Order: sequence, then C-alpha cells, then structure tokens
Amino acid sequence: MRNRVIIENIQPQLQGGRYFIKRIIGERIDISADIFGDGHDAVRASFFYKELDAKKWNEVFMTPEVNDRWTSSFTPQKQGYYEYKIEAWIDHLTNWHNGFLKKYDDGQHMGVELQIGAEWLRKTAAQYAKTKATALTKMAALLEDKKGYEKAVSTVLSPEFHQLVYEFPLKQFPSTSDVTYRVRVGRPKELFSTWYEVFPRSTAQKLGVHGTFKDVERILPRLTEMGFDVLYLPPIHPIGMANRKGKNNSLTAHANDPGSPWAIGSKEGGHKAIHSELGTLDDYKHLIKKAKEHGMEMALDLAFQCAPDHPYIKDHPEWFTWRPDGTIAYAENPPKKYQDIVPINFETEDWDNLWKELRSVILYWVEQGVKIFRVDNPHTKPFAFWEWVLREVHIVDPDVIFLAEAFTRPKVMAALAKLGFTQGYTYYIWRNNKHEMEAYLTELTRTEWREFFRPNFWPNTPDILPYELMGAGANAFVFRLLMAGTLSSNYGLYGPSYEFMENRGNANGKEEYLDSEKYEIRLYDWNHRNRLTDSITRLNHIRQQNPALQDTYNIHFTRTDNDKLMSYIKLTEDRSNIIWCVANFDTAYPQAGYVEVPKHLLGIEGRMVNLKVVDLLTGDTYHWFNEWNYVELNPAKWPIHIFKVEIR
Amino acid sequence: MRNRVIIENIQPQLQGGRYFIKRIIGERIDISADIFGDGHDAVRASFFYKELDAKKWNEVFMTPEVNDRWTSSFTPQKQGYYEYKIEAWIDHLTNWHNGFLKKYDDGQHMGVELQIGAEWLRKTAAQYAKTKATALTKMAALLEDKKGYEKAVSTVLSPEFHQLVYEFPLKQFPSTSDVTYRVRVGRPKELFSTWYEVFPRSTAQKLGVHGTFKDVERILPRLTEMGFDVLYLPPIHPIGMANRKGKNNSLTAHANDPGSPWAIGSKEGGHKAIHSELGTLDDYKHLIKKAKEHGMEMALDLAFQCAPDHPYIKDHPEWFTWRPDGTIAYAENPPKKYQDIVPINFETEDWDNLWKELRSVILYWVEQGVKIFRVDNPHTKPFAFWEWVLREVHIVDPDVIFLAEAFTRPKVMAALAKLGFTQGYTYYIWRNNKHEMEAYLTELTRTEWREFFRPNFWPNTPDILPYELMGAGANAFVFRLLMAGTLSSNYGLYGPSYEFMENRGNANGKEEYLDSEKYEIRLYDWNHRNRLTDSITRLNHIRQQNPALQDTYNIHFTRTDNDKLMSYIKLTEDRSNIIWCVANFDTAYPQAGYVEVPKHLLGIEGRMVNLKVVDLLTGDTYHWFNEWNYVELNPAKWPIHIFKVEIR
Repeated sequence: MRNRVIIENIQPQLQGGRYFIKRIIGERIDISADIFGDGHDAVRASFFYKELDAKKWNEVFMTPEVNDRWTSSFTPQKQGYYEYKIEAWIDHLTNWHNGFLKKYDDGQHMGVELQIGAEWLRKTAAQYAKTKATALTKMAALLEDKKGYEKAVSTVLSPEFHQLVYEFPLKQFPSTSDVTYRVRVGRPKELFSTWYEVFPRSTAQKLGVHGTFKDVERILPRLTEMGFDVLYLPPIHPIGMANRKGKNNSLTAHANDPGSPWAIGSKEGGHKAIHSELGTLDDYKHLIKKAKEHGMEMALDLAFQCAPDHPYIKDHPEWFTWRPDGTIAYAENPPKKYQDIVPINFETEDWDNLWKELRSVILYWVEQGVKIFRVDNPHTKPFAFWEWVLREVHIVDPDVIFLAEAFTRPKVMAALAKLGFTQGYTYYIWRNNKHEMEAYLTELTRTEWREFFRPNFWPNTPDILPYELMGAGANAFVFRLLMAGTLSSNYGLYGPSYEFMENRGNANGKEEYLDSEKYEIRLYDWNHRNRLTDSITRLNHIRQQNPALQDTYNIHFTRTDNDKLMSYIKLTEDRSNIIWCVANFDTAYPQAGYVEVPKHLLGIEGRMVNLKVVDLLTGDTYHWFNEWNYVELNPAKWPIHIFKVEIR
Repeated sequence: MRNRVIIENIQPQLQGGRYFIKRIIGERIDISADIFGDGHDAVRASFFYKELDAKKWNEVFMTPEVNDRWTSSFTPQKQGYYEYKIEAWIDHLTNWHNGFLKKYDDGQHMGVELQIGAEWLRKTAAQYAKTKATALTKMAALLEDKKGYEKAVSTVLSPEFHQLVYEFPLKQFPSTSDVTYRVRVGRPKELFSTWYEVFPRSTAQKLGVHGTFKDVERILPRLTEMGFDVLYLPPIHPIGMANRKGKNNSLTAHANDPGSPWAIGSKEGGHKAIHSELGTLDDYKHLIKKAKEHGMEMALDLAFQCAPDHPYIKDHPEWFTWRPDGTIAYAENPPKKYQDIVPINFETEDWDNLWKELRSVILYWVEQGVKIFRVDNPHTKPFAFWEWVLREVHIVDPDVIFLAEAFTRPKVMAALAKLGFTQGYTYYIWRNNKHEMEAYLTELTRTEWREFFRPNFWPNTPDILPYELMGAGANAFVFRLLMAGTLSSNYGLYGPSYEFMENRGNANGKEEYLDSEKYEIRLYDWNHRNRLTDSITRLNHIRQQNPALQDTYNIHFTRTDNDKLMSYIKLTEDRSNIIWCVANFDTAYPQAGYVEVPKHLLGIEGRMVNLKVVDLLTGDTYHWFNEWNYVELNPAKWPIHIFKVEIR
C-alpha cells in the first residue's frame, strides 16, 4: 500500500494482455506508458522483457516524454513468445540529487543535504550485490566526511555522480504493471511472402489428363524466375464421391468430373491421405524438397470439413449432427444446403478427442515438411479451438505460418488474427478507389490492427473474381497486381487465372469465375509469356531487392493534387531504402498531376529538396528540386511509378 | 471450451474494470459490446446488472446493431455500487426458428424441421422452472403431432411463437464477459451543485474583528437569494503559530496576523478541532443546521498537512520526516521551503495507523453533519490512500461528496477521479477562447473522461486570480461567470472576491491576488448589490428552473460564422427542456453573426425550422424560421444569450 506510482495505458498491448501482439525477428517494439506518482518527487521506471520460459528479465530504463508518457523499446532477436512488463517507483536518491542541484544553485549551505544524500546512497547500496554496491558506499563515506565539504559538494555536482545515480536507482515500494504482456516473434516470412496458388491437377501437359505433383515440379523454375516464394496448392486429399459437384457448381457430376478439392474424404482416406491421382506421399515430399531447392515453400490447404463419404463419419459419427430422420446434417445457409459437404459439430460431447484428432492432422503434415497452411474458412470453426491448436502447433514448431482465409465481418477477422493466425486475407480485393484504399491501409497500419493482423493482399482467388476485373483488360490486371505487391509485403495470386487474365464471370450476379477450376481440370500453356508475367517478374524482383517493400507497417500516404493519383512512400527506419509509389486508379486514361515531397518524413526539413528518383519498372530517372513535382502515368504502359528515392 | 461467442470491447468501462464508472440516480447507462460467434448460427446476448451486495441479477436481452455491436441500457434508481456483465451464446432454438422461416419461404417440406424444433423446445424447457417451461413442452408436443402438420407449421410461423422463442432463450455453453464491471451511483448533487466559498473570518461587521460562524449565519439569506446550494469554508481548524505567514505570504507575521487557515494545528488542537475565534463545535453544527434550512449544504476543507505546532508532530513523530540534524522536514519545492507547513510522510512504517487516523478525521466530521468535502491538493498524497479512504467513507455514508482540488497534470487529475473523487476542479479557469473551450468540453464529455470525471468550473479561487481577470472590468467577470454556470452543471465562486470584482494581482508575475485573504481578514459590505450579484442571481435561478443545465454531458457545440461567438445547446433526453447558449468571447466589443439550427439534434430533420427562442436573462423573444439565424451580443449588457428553445 505504500507504493505511490501509477502505471497505465501500456502500449502496445491487446485487451489488457488477453492476446499477444506480433512481431518478426529484428522488428523493433516501441513501448510506452503513462507513469506518474503523487506529489513532486522524482519518478523512475524500467521496462522488463524476457523470453517466456527464461528466468531472468532484461531491464531497460525508460525515458519520460511529454505529459507523463514514458517510452522504451526492444528488438527481439529470437523466434518465440516473449513477455514484458513495467516497474516504476519514487526514486528518493534521484529526488534528493535533483533537489541538491537546485538548492546549490540557490546558494544554500549543503551540509545537511550531504548527510541526507549519504543516507540515500547507503539505502541504495543495500539493494545491490556487494561488488556493485562498493561505489555507492564509498560515495556515501565521501559525502559524510565533514572535513571534505568542498570536495563532497563538487563530487555531487559532477557528471560522474549523475551517472551513478542514474545507473543505481533506489527502488522503494515499486509498482508493477497489473499484468504481463506477451509478444509472439515469428520468422521473417510471416511479414514478407509472395504466394502463387495453383490447382495441381491443372498442371498436366495434355487436355483431359489429371496433373500430378511431378507436373507441379516442372513449373517450379518458371515460378522461381517470376519471384514467388510460397507455392500454395488447394487440398490434395481424396475427393468425396457422394453428392460430388459437377462443372460450374452443378448438383450432378458426370463420371469424369473431378469434384471440388474442398469436399475432402472418400474411401481412399481423409485429411491425412493424398488424392491418388496426384501421386503418393513420397511424391509430395519430393515436391516439397524440389520447391525448397527453388527457393519456395509449399503451403497446404487446411479445410476442416468432410465429404459425406469421409472416413470420419463412419468412425466418429458423434462428431457430426444427425437429424431425427437418421440423415446427416449437411452444411447449410438456409434455405440453401451444400450436400457435398458435412460440417463437423464442434459442440459434440466428444470435443476433446475431436480437437486432438484435428491437431494430429496439422502435426502430421508438419512432420512431412509443410510449414505453411492456408486455412479454409476458419471463421466457421470455434475461436477457442483455433487459439488452442495454433498455440499447440507453434510450441512444436514456431516456423509454421497460418494464413486465415476469412472473408467475413471485420470483428471476426480481427478475432482470428488475435487468436493466433499469422496472416489474413483482406478486403483489398474490394477496395477500388484512392479514398477507400488509403482508409483501409490506415486502419491496418495505424490502429490496433497493426499489432495483430498481417494482411496478405490477393487481387483474386478461386472463389472471387472481383467485379473490378470482370471483363477487364491487362491494364486493370497489371494495376491491381502492382498495387497489391507494393502496398502489402505479403501478397499472392491465384496464379494461372491471373497471369492469363481470366476475366469471365459466371453471370449469376456473384463475383465467381465462369467454369471455375474448383469443379474442373484446366490446361495451361506454362511457357506462355505476356504483359502480366513480365509485370509480375519485375514487381517481385523489385520487392526482393528493396527492404522497404518487405514491410507493410512502414507506409505513409502523401499528398497529390489529383484524386486519381495515390502516392505512398515506404522506407526503412534508417532511410537507407526509400520507395515512393504513385498509382493511377484510372485504368483507361493517362493521368498527370503533382506529388508533394514530405520533407519531414524524408528527414530533409529545413533543407532544399534535391532528390534523384529512379523508376524501378522503367529505369527512367528524374531529379526533383521542388516541393511539388510533376508525374504522368499511362495505364497502358505502367499504371504505377515505383520510384527508388535518393536524397542528395 | 465449447462456448463459441466472443464478447469484447464492453462500454462503458474503465481499464478493464479496474475502476468504477460514475452515474447519479436516474441517469441512464447505455451499454454496448462487440459480440459475435463463429459461423452463421444465431447469436443472442443478455446484459446483467445488480446492486453490489444483492444476490439476484437483473437480465435484459441485448439488441444487435450494425457490425456485431450489441446494446442495452439501464437506469439505476438507488444510490450505491452496482455491478454489470454480459452473457452471450449461440441460441439453437432461435437459429432453428430463423432457418425454419427461410426454408418454409423456399417451399421446402417442414416435416423433419418440426421434429428438430420439438427437440430444441424440450432442451429449452429443461433450462426453466417447471411453471415457466409448460408453454415450451406443450409447444414441443404440438410440433411433433404428425397428424397436425398444417397446424404445427402455422404455429411456428405465428408472431406468438416468435415471441416465445425470444422470451425463452436456449443458453448452451454461454460466454461471459471476463470481468464484472462496476458503477457507483450517487445522489443528484454530485452532478448539479452551485458553490460559494467564503472565509468565515471575513464575515464580521467591523474592520479588525474576526468573523464567526454566527456571522456566517447572517449572510445565509443573501446566498440563498442568489441561488447557491453549497457553502464552502476554508479550513476551520486551529491555525499554527510556528512560522506563521504574514500578509501577502511574507515570512514574518505580525502579532495580529491571523495566518493561513491551511497551516492546520496548534496547541489548541488539530484536524478535529475548531479554531476558537470562529466559535465552538456547537456553533458549527448550528451553522450546518441553519444552512440546511436555507437550502444549503456546508462543505468542509480537507487539507492533510500540518503546521509545525500540530499535535500530531509530538504525538506521532513517526508520521513525519526528520533530517539528520534533528529538524523536521518542511514542505518544499526545491529550492523553496514552506516553513509554515509540514507534510505527512505517507511512506512511514506506521502507515496503517496513519491511514486509520485520517479516516477517523473524515468520519468525525461526517458525524457532525458534514456531507461535502473540498479536498486540498489530493495529488500530493498517495493514490492508494485515496482509493481506500473514499471507499471507506462511502460505505459508511454514500451521500458524501469529495471535490478534488487538484490543479495539476491531466493524467493525475484523471487518476484521482477514477480512484473515487466525486467532483474535480478543472482547467476552465485557463481556457480563454472558443477553440480551447470547445476542445476542453469535448474532452470532458465525449471521451473516456465522461465516465469518471465530474467537472466543477470555478472562474476564480483564493489561490488563483487568472490573468484573464487581472485588471478586468465587470464585462469579463459576468462573462466568465455565465459561461461557467452554463457549460458545467457543477460550478462555484470564491464568492466575495468575485462578486465585488477583486481584480488586483500581486504583481509577482503569478496568478495570485494582491493582499490575499489567505493571510489576512477582510471586511465586506454584505448588503452591497452590483451587476455581478444580479447576474449570479439570474444565472442560478435559470439553472434551478431548467433541467438541461443540471447536466454537463448533454452539451452539443453547434456552428456559428463568427469565431468570437461560441454556440452550445444542452437538452434533456426527451427534448422537453432545450437551452441554447451563444457566448461572445469579446469582452470589449459587441459581436454579431449567424448560428446554425442543428436540425438533427433538435429532432426536426426534414421539417421546416420554426423555433421560438426566449432569452432567459432578458426575456427577449425571437422567432427563427431559417437554418441560420442572426444574433448580436453586447458584452456591456449580456455577453451570453441563454435561450430557452420551443420547437413549434
């Protein structure tokens, strides 16, 4: 009850420590808090952090800024969970020292003050190990030496004494933050990744032939050359025969229809089995190895749902919902029923075994070498399950990355990210003008979302051909691509459809592909090159060479005088890499205008502007000497400038 | 682990329930929270509240608004502490019913659905007392009657069935908010009070005579007539003789100098004693009684500090700080020392007894009939002490009001209010233009402060003659008065100085009065009337007659076309009382301009404007038919319009 300091509003943190925040190795965490005591005595504060299972805390003295706000920072160098907290106290040694300086300046006699100081120094010494305390006890003796008044006074006034007081705080009745906060530190790929999605069955070389893992290996060099580093395949498990869907999601399948890979499970097996037409487990592991040699990681789809002939249904009928007429409950969104899919009933009495089985599915694939999962519709499974299973997997292997495919309401998406998903799909696909895009990126990078949500921008997915791209030409495809890859450090493409500019909607009024690959096998010419493949290649190589584009939270929107032109700058903390993009939202016509040089952001406040900007797409070089500079963008050539900025 | 609903971001609350929020009897609390489940099943939520020591919770069904935000409200009718929480769950009865309606509309056969519904109804019935459950079991039987298909279907489609499902939620695996939140409900005076501060020793009728409690009784009718309802006297305890301060805070007092009342304690006694020149305890109790008869409550000053001759120092030397030379540590703000004041050392080993003694001081005066305390410099005593002692007193007597005199940094002021202070002094005294004033009121009423801080606006105090009033004329005094009393429902005056327009600063560069009454006795003509007394009287009567002015959080700033004119509207929730003020910040010259009618706020959106506005100060009546209306304010007459608005 004798502690006198309040510690409040510690940032960053989520809901009072309920959830951990996220960082990657080497990504700095800036800590701040409101810290204040009663009265006018000197307050001091320390920030503490440690790895979760370490015993020793690291202590960093905090610095007071304006208005009782204190700050500190740390940069984690290892993967895993860390915890942090704050301690603060009235420091009577510092307080006495501050008063001493003022009273001395006021011309007062310092005799009694020296004695008081000696007392505080001895109390301080008592708090430290003997070896460390020697300096303090010696100093106390010096202050008390009545014959050495002059020397004692000048000692207290010295910078060395000031340093001593700073280094040896006197902690009496310290207050500690109510809770300990946590951060999960991941590997760099969590924040910087470039995804390519392909249906493996569509990688064969002949029409009507089912592609295999071997076929996928064949396109690896092409993907490497284009600069991708994650290769994501839709589910590779046996596809249900019962109620299988036909082309274009029709209710009756023909004999040759391959079915949707998301209707998982047949007599061939379930979530731990491989669809035999793709190859064997060994083939899959070989693909993982080959991909790795090409600088790519394989991502597996995780869809916790069953086809009606999934083995679980016979083996664990208690995990499903049965209707009074003895039939199983299909997935439904009344009045619609999805008869090729049976949802798992997570409310089952046997939930404990169910959870463990699903955990074993993930760990099985981790064991085969899969470190990245794209999780299908995680928002339709309980939050508590995800929090548990993601943590369980991360304890086994902290390298595992989970991308949440949750296109749903913002609070649900936020919850999944807080519960542990590493990355999330976003609304990027539906943000179509400058105002929307700036507002969305600002929410993702300048609000609480920054602490838990790592966006992954996809301009298309097998489920979504956005209206914006329906019937669109190459200009729009190039534009949406370049924006995704420069706004967000994580981005991905549903590959061949995007590269080859599939733009035909299925005309049912929804944002769906005509002849969706979900229900049929396609044949692609994997040697084809076009404006898109070229744009992708250039973009990805620019991303690889410029660290500023390997972060999402370092974005700053700057002013233009044309509402069709969006200007944004990304830069590394030391400003050694500065990328300035100007994007033209008009995909039909050239747009021109002026962009402002943000002098404060670039660290050239009070100086003349002298910038060399090189467009990394075209190689064109400009010299900017004014605060506002002219740009012109022709969507038929390059709809975005990606300038590398040199400050001269 | 089977619960599927997340409850987040419950409002109002302070720091995750660490502190209680504040309301008065009859003041509605609007509750909201983010509530959502996984998947698409129907979610339901209930808000629960109860008095802290009650056993039974009151349950109110919450309503979903947009974007997963749910709301509810309750209006406490009794003083004391309440707690509240939220519960939410997937409701399978509601979910089935929703699906039933959609499937029926889709033309499906409902046979199996009826059986499923019967099952849910029976599960629901099992959750309720037998008497209540009958309706549900009967309904289950009806749904299962295979011969009555048509009847069963039409029953489920009926509004009565819908109502049944609503009234009898099926709560399976409910989630509960992590913590229980608290609100302290106080008496109406906590939010609406009008204070007058007077030094009792300055109420005598002759120069050089020490005023008494009897003299104070003499001015009661005058204060009642002027409309005050709290009479606050600076400390009434014995004043220390040791190191007593003289006139204008001089270090040496003359024999006749009365000393500062805040230098508490002498051989006459300490914090439970009465300064003998003022009268006896009986006299004080008589004054309390008389004041009550005049509609006024007495407020006592609570200054936990001692004169060097306070009895505590001899009786409890361990409660103070002693220097190595054997002298006591005076209050100081280095390099300055305040030798008439000794601070209490709250870090003493004997803190437990110290706290209990200080509690006994408060409870002693509560026993004598004091229900209001103005607490001197609470920010120089430990936060933990205040949290404990305020709560202890409120348990004994919930009527007690504590006004914190903390003119300090915003976070410290906020902390004191959160810890339990009922009202607080504010920065009103230093807010001098429209922009500052609107920003300040917005912070107090539209941010988290609304939940814990009840402002009390004082245009002056014995410690502060603001620069704005130094050398100022009546215009400025009237203006600062009217603004205080219309912006804030709690306001007060350091009375005679304000009424009689004391405007002489002490010329030391600080905002202090010349010949401060803190160090000398003054003589006032208590029969004097002037422009100020008239303004005060009118203002206070207008406040008494208009409920809209008895609240602070109901303020809305509206637009004007003149930066010198500030427009604000206060209204009761049912709009039965609407007060519209327009204030002219120019105290030298008349200002004119237009003010906008906020149609949405007044509930006349989409209608023609037709307002009758009556200036309650002058009686002048205007009819406004336009969206923008002309106003003109002459500071030499009335610097503020206080319009009562009638919507026609």
